[in-house]
Amino acid sequence: MNEFDFIRQLRERLRSQKGSARLIQGAGDDTAVISQTADRDLLITTDLLVENIDFLREATPALLLGHKALAVSLSDIAAMGGRPLWSLVSIGLPESAWSSDYQTDFYTGYLALADLFGVTLTGGDVSESSQVVIDSIVVGEARPDRAVLRSTARPGDHVFVTGNLGGAAAGLRLIELGARVRSPSVSAGVAEPLAAATGSTTNDDDGAINSLLLRQLAPQPRVGWGIVLGEEELATSMIDISDGLSSDLHRLCVESNVGATIDAASLPLNENVKQLCGRRALDPVALALHGGEDFELLFTVAPENVPRLPKRVDGTPISRIGEISDQSGVTEVREHHRTWRLQPQGFSHFTRPKT
Amino acid sequence: MNEFDFIRQLRERLRSQKGSARLIQGAGDDTAVISQTADRDLLITTDLLVENIDFLREATPALLLGHKALAVSLSDIAAMGGRPLWSLVSIGLPESAWSSDYQTDFYTGYLALADLFGVTLTGGDVSESSQVVIDSIVVGEARPDRAVLRSTARPGDHVFVTGNLGGAAAGLRLIELGARVRSPSVSAGVAEPLAAATGSTTNDDDGAINSLLLRQLAPQPRVGWGIVLGEEELATSMIDISDGLSSDLHRLCVESNVGATIDAASLPLNENVKQLCGRRALDPVALALHGGEDFELLFTVAPENVPRLPKRVDGTPISRIGEISDQSGVTEVREHHRTWRLQPQGFSHFTRPKT
Repeated sequence: MNEFDFIRQLRERLRSQKGSARLIQGAGDDTAVISQTADRDLLITTDLLVENIDFLREATPALLLGHKALAVSLSDIAAMGGRPLWSLVSIGLPESAWSSDYQTDFYTGYLALADLFGVTLTGGDVSESSQVVIDSIVVGEARPDRAVLRSTARPGDHVFVTGNLGGAAAGLRLIELGARVRSPSVSAGVAEPLAAATGSTTNDDDGAINSLLLRQLAPQPRVGWGIVLGEEELATSMIDISDGLSSDLHRLCVESNVGATIDAASLPLNENVKQLCGRRALDPVALALHGGEDFELLFTVAPENVPRLPKRVDGTPISRIGEISDQSGVTEVREHHRTWRLQPQGFSHFTRPKT
Repeated sequence: MNEFDFIRQLRERLRSQKGSARLIQGAGDDTAVISQTADRDLLITTDLLVENIDFLREATPALLLGHKALAVSLSDIAAMGGRPLWSLVSIGLPESAWSSDYQTDFYTGYLALADLFGVTLTGGDVSESSQVVIDSIVVGEARPDRAVLRSTARPGDHVFVTGNLGGAAAGLRLIELGARVRSPSVSAGVAEPLAAATGSTTNDDDGAINSLLLRQLAPQPRVGWGIVLGEEELATSMIDISDGLSSDLHRLCVESNVGATIDAASLPLNENVKQLCGRRALDPVALALHGGEDFELLFTVAPENVPRLPKRVDGTPISRIGEISDQSGVTEVREHHRTWRLQPQGFSHFTRPKT
């Protein structure tokens, strides 16, 4: 039984658990949704990051790990169309890291991102451990019944994705090949990764490599887009791309009992990936389809609402990449007048690609 | 820098963080308190349990670990006078545990306790790890401004503790000496530990040992007492005993800018500890003063409210053990007409007693 099987089993168990009347959506979406009061629902999410599984310590500056720990949970709140407000973080550290600047750097990176989105760190726990382990918890809010689920896409909806795809997976490959990010300075905070990871191209290979490493190590959660898509009731369904487009699109389709067809030509490929391709045996389309951890938002919009979509939010554009069909669980790609079946094959773990 | 120093540093950092207007009590108490609406405050807590630090895997059946993971967080909510409602749990497991019944047993124990208190498991995360790591998150509620803090004890208040003390620390010593709990059956669920760990005495040493092991491995959070003390506005301050009475009382006094004097004769010693003492070099009073993980509630009550206290809640009695003084940070013990200074020396970690 792999991780997905186990989560599926747990989810069924949770769904059958005699629930509180105030729980409206349990485990099984990006966050739990709790109907809290007449004017707001509460969203809660938790993400566990384990050294050697989710990251390599020697390739991940603590400053960026702090950033990423919060970013992955903010991305879950965004994927529900919610607004993040509070956070907690539990951290287990080996004794060697206690005596260094490791935890100071970690919290510096964490709090810089928290400040950027007005999120207040309200608590947490610490323990000793043999590996670095981080559990990141974010609490957010959505207007009642406005939380955007995975299970509510409808045939005919257009499929969109924020930003660009494949960069984080390329960054992971580069780390596996031995590439290391230029050490970010604490004084510069997270401004440097913020600028570099937004997908801007650079005019040299070193710059492109560093940008891709930062796409992997310092992902940018699409918090602004999440709020707009949720509060303006623009998205009919949404998920964040953590395991890869093919896996996450398939998951959304299965949950919604629909299918989807994607246009290969419309996929927003990461420019740095394109720049490096050929020379390093990276296929930009395969990385965009199956690469994990871009933490972009994948969402569906009813045709009549497409004109209401903003062009950019916080500088990040969106791309229309396909449409929803009524063929339950069938995900396909149109490429050069040919249509082929898209199998879910995202990689989610560092040392164990799920292919 | 040890764990406490680090938490203190982090706490100062959090207090200085530009906070949300809706945060009324940040990190530094048993839970975070968020002023959510006019008719309720939200409480959130997280507890990280790491194998070999917080528990020994071979001495801790997964069923009981599931119970304990939730119990420690429920105890935090109780210590704020709150009502627990929802929970999440993140779990990291070594590959060997994936293929066994480990996670099934874990969730069985977890959900049995959740059901007992009407808590709904709403989500979580799973990952692979080299050690078993659990992060337990519980969300609860308190009426506005009724959350009971550590920092609000007043000179003249009486000091009380629920249940009895020293059993969990004795259980820990017994585990270190090689004692192992009788394997709890999954079908019996947690009924057996529930009955055994409430402090009932048994008429043989084996039974006493098993009860003490269960005090350590399956602590009973004082959820009912927490709700009564908070909602009836009976407690002026409260903390749960996780690191030991001497440490947690000292913490409460420092936070409240008061002192306390404890009567040694009034300490509610665990009966099984008394039964086994002498034969196994355990000092019941020392265990009651310094032993961690009993997860009893330590609270203060204004003299005029003492008559309003119920005798028992959910079958658990309370004991008046002393009173609050105006000597800031000074904790003392009265014993045989002599008064001596009580130094905080709780043990919090399994392999590294903090003495």
